[in-house]
Amino acid sequence: VSSPRLPAEDQLIAWLRGLEASGRLGDDTAQIEDLGPVAISVDQQIAGTHFPADLDPAWVARRLLEVCLSDLAASAARPRCAFLAVAAPSGWDHRRFFRALDRACLSRGIELAGGDVARSAGLVLSLTVLGARPEGGRWTRRSNGRPGDHLWLGGPVGLSALGRRLVERGARPRGRGIELPAELASAAPLARAARRAVRAHLAPTAQIELGLWLGRQRRAAAIDVSDGLALDLARLCRESAAGAVIDLEALPVDPRLDALARHLGLDALEQALSGGEDYVLLFALPPTVPPPRSAGCTSIGRLTEGPGMRVAGSDRELAPTGWSHL
Amino acid sequence: VSSPRLPAEDQLIAWLRGLEASGRLGDDTAQIEDLGPVAISVDQQIAGTHFPADLDPAWVARRLLEVCLSDLAASAARPRCAFLAVAAPSGWDHRRFFRALDRACLSRGIELAGGDVARSAGLVLSLTVLGARPEGGRWTRRSNGRPGDHLWLGGPVGLSALGRRLVERGARPRGRGIELPAELASAAPLARAARRAVRAHLAPTAQIELGLWLGRQRRAAAIDVSDGLALDLARLCRESAAGAVIDLEALPVDPRLDALARHLGLDALEQALSGGEDYVLLFALPPTVPPPRSAGCTSIGRLTEGPGMRVAGSDRELAPTGWSHL
Repeated sequence: VSSPRLPAEDQLIAWLRGLEASGRLGDDTAQIEDLGPVAISVDQQIAGTHFPADLDPAWVARRLLEVCLSDLAASAARPRCAFLAVAAPSGWDHRRFFRALDRACLSRGIELAGGDVARSAGLVLSLTVLGARPEGGRWTRRSNGRPGDHLWLGGPVGLSALGRRLVERGARPRGRGIELPAELASAAPLARAARRAVRAHLAPTAQIELGLWLGRQRRAAAIDVSDGLALDLARLCRESAAGAVIDLEALPVDPRLDALARHLGLDALEQALSGGEDYVLLFALPPTVPPPRSAGCTSIGRLTEGPGMRVAGSDRELAPTGWSHL
Repeated sequence: VSSPRLPAEDQLIAWLRGLEASGRLGDDTAQIEDLGPVAISVDQQIAGTHFPADLDPAWVARRLLEVCLSDLAASAARPRCAFLAVAAPSGWDHRRFFRALDRACLSRGIELAGGDVARSAGLVLSLTVLGARPEGGRWTRRSNGRPGDHLWLGGPVGLSALGRRLVERGARPRGRGIELPAELASAAPLARAARRAVRAHLAPTAQIELGLWLGRQRRAAAIDVSDGLALDLARLCRESAAGAVIDLEALPVDPRLDALARHLGLDALEQALSGGEDYVLLFALPPTVPPPRSAGCTSIGRLTEGPGMRVAGSDRELAPTGWSHL
């Protein structure tokens, strides 16, 4: 009695089991014996919403993973495993996607422990990630802030939003480089900034190490800037029952980006405040505890007795504007 | 300084926090202190693939949860918490969906611990569920079967596949009842079977208690029948390095369904073998260990020295046909 050919899904799973980060796929569930305290998050990447449908599946895979890991970073969790749901049109290159995801998981020390694939008219990817709390570590909840805390940013904001516009105008990864729309490719001074912006948008890096450092402090509040600095700050403030005052001059906005923003008809500061998809950590620490210099963080203001967010040195309110998901 | 209106997503989350099963939403991750050994699974429900786009979001919610819990049942895990990703077109009734999901989670003792909502042209829902292994319990892996084990089904197969055809022909839930296409609604003897089939399709019930019973046995292999009995049996056989012989006469196919299948131009036995979406447990136990009578299980054959699946009392091979996801 021979064993007839199994469906494409089973063939894909058999192939996936040969990849390094996906060895245990194939049961109804993944079973994990000893995880300890865990932080869990789910995030999506949707063609037409978060990225263009023709984006290389390998870049989609890496972006999906880092976007999800950014939530673990904000909770001071060490990434452990991931569960993937793929809804994709027929003909989409699953294997190219999975090969890149496997490599990305490996480089992050993560197991791709389970998943589901199904057919769909559009491409929707969702990833659930689990992270462990290191021995002696603490969760860095949004609600941990106190009035008087200093506010810090783990990296630049606004760059990714400019990159998004460039991708909308046709910028695409080509091999390991970035191919720009013709009018920018020929404008040498802008092209360099434009490539950085596209890379910041398509290939963010979750600030896992910074998050783990925060988790080793006595008290830290953190959130990752996914929907825009002003909006995510408003969320941190609300959960901490605090207000905030922000020094706009201090925001880590690369000066070379002003020209790029102008070229795109945008205001660099506005993009920094509300552009979103920066995937850097915004965190609050007691004034006596600065982050390590090597982490390249920027002090941008402080938490106040709430409510409301103000601009330092003025009466101007800061509106919680940003990316809306609904 | 006032607190300006936050975006629709934040308003939805604030509303969700008022529901009973979703109280802790709103951080970057959900943190769980003490889960013990866990089983984790992710599954999707996609409009146009798994259900019609106009299906009542409340029914979609309940189906999504039970379909996912069926994987936990197959691993003998007790459901604990769930993480949801919603990709939905604007205008979709999120609150109706979440209200029903909340109630369904409550009735299953599950916390909806995290999620992500985003806009999408089509409706794609994915749910990651975590279940705990009860004290003294064992996982009921697909690979736990041995030649000589008896094979059992936890409930009827084929009914859901007939229900799917009826939904394709316009059958829909109306309140708590089922509204049938006109030609069936007037055919009294068929209408009752048709309503049962639609209900089996749209409102499956994961066999959690049966799974937990299996987990209390010394050795049990299980899989949930989601893609068709023959295909899921082939998967259990492959993981257990066994073959199988199946008694087709013994299959729990409701005789009243023959007429319905004929009406739909289908073969009831073929739907039982390959229709899929039954969400009943298929399991293997040593011959000396029958499941409790009250569970209503049916003995359908046994595992053999592999490979291959045969029909009892004949030389006929059983092909691993079923639902293909790619």
